[in-house]
Amino acid sequence: MEMNAVFKISYGLFFISTEYKGQKAACVVNTVTQVTQTPILISVTVLKSNFTHDMIKKSNKFFLGIMGQKVDLNLIDNFGSKSGRNFDKFQNAQYEKDILENPIIEDGCIATLSCKVVQTVDLPTHTTFIAELVDAKNISKEEPITYADYRNKKVKLKGGEKMAETATYECTICHYVYDGDIPFEELPDDYVCPVCGEPKSAFEKV
Amino acid sequence: MEMNAVFKISYGLFFISTEYKGQKAACVVNTVTQVTQTPILISVTVLKSNFTHDMIKKSNKFFLGIMGQKVDLNLIDNFGSKSGRNFDKFQNAQYEKDILENPIIEDGCIATLSCKVVQTVDLPTHTTFIAELVDAKNISKEEPITYADYRNKKVKLKGGEKMAETATYECTICHYVYDGDIPFEELPDDYVCPVCGEPKSAFEKV
Repeated sequence: MEMNAVFKISYGLFFISTEYKGQKAACVVNTVTQVTQTPILISVTVLKSNFTHDMIKKSNKFFLGIMGQKVDLNLIDNFGSKSGRNFDKFQNAQYEKDILENPIIEDGCIATLSCKVVQTVDLPTHTTFIAELVDAKNISKEEPITYADYRNKKVKLKGGEKMAETATYECTICHYVYDGDIPFEELPDDYVCPVCGEPKSAFEKV
Repeated sequence: MEMNAVFKISYGLFFISTEYKGQKAACVVNTVTQVTQTPILISVTVLKSNFTHDMIKKSNKFFLGIMGQKVDLNLIDNFGSKSGRNFDKFQNAQYEKDILENPIIEDGCIATLSCKVVQTVDLPTHTTFIAELVDAKNISKEEPITYADYRNKKVKLKGGEKMAETATYECTICHYVYDGDIPFEELPDDYVCPVCGEPKSAFEKV
């Protein structure tokens, strides 16, 4: 079985956020699809060990920012690679709230969606949240960034002079490439893959 | 609410097929994601009124062909736009079978997956099938085609001389553009959108 064949499945890239009892949580996901049209139901799958997962379980609502081609790759890394359990991702910025009181993350996004969870699907390591679309907004006509675009951009960055002598690490789960600004060994032990949420131990040197 | 914001969500394009008691069924879907890694679970959402949907419900298995950039657009239209209930999509060709005895559709595909259903999620108009990956194969290094690529290619075709005087119809559900080789009025009443499976009545002249 050639397991890497699954990397050919196309995905977009999204900020997902929620709020519960005044506490905010957010991370990056790639597993968003629209699953029905009447009503409009959106499906998103989140790793159970993820702080945002627990918060959505409690709040039953989330905001999605659909990232565009020009999104700042550092923003993805910053939002994705630290756990909200012990780091306040919202500390340095003011965020407006959407119609459901979720924090709005619009930087680099071309559209936003606000969703109310109507069904959850319990999977071995993840939960699939199925949610009704209650608000939607277009921001720009720019094309969405796909997860493949993102990986390609990271690989190009890696090729630059700055990164030339740095070891690179790749997430064995989702192919995310850590570009090595900080030596991987010095990253905090609670570092998680910014896209699929797997722990540091899921990374291999490439 | 700007409902068309949901069209910014990125998808791939896939042939899906199954076999039950000697009968084959296949169609085109865009709602495939990998939802967990241990085990590798694949999620696909199919419209309930779709013949392939009923067949997967019975067979509990399916084959997925991940389409590449060079896939023949006519093949997508042919596979998607007729119902398998009253038309044998396999009549003019021999198809090999995968490890689960599903018909293999490899034309224009860059990878194939064979999956065994382990869980179903009942939604208002669709079923989400969650399935364990039991086989996977790479075919080529070509990039996958996204649903957005496909729509763009169709729009370019439409712009060609041949199509210049033909009315065009768009699926109000998924934005699929019917390119008008046959006058839309003369299409069979059981015509369905090749991508999302909605009936002819879901189309509007553009």
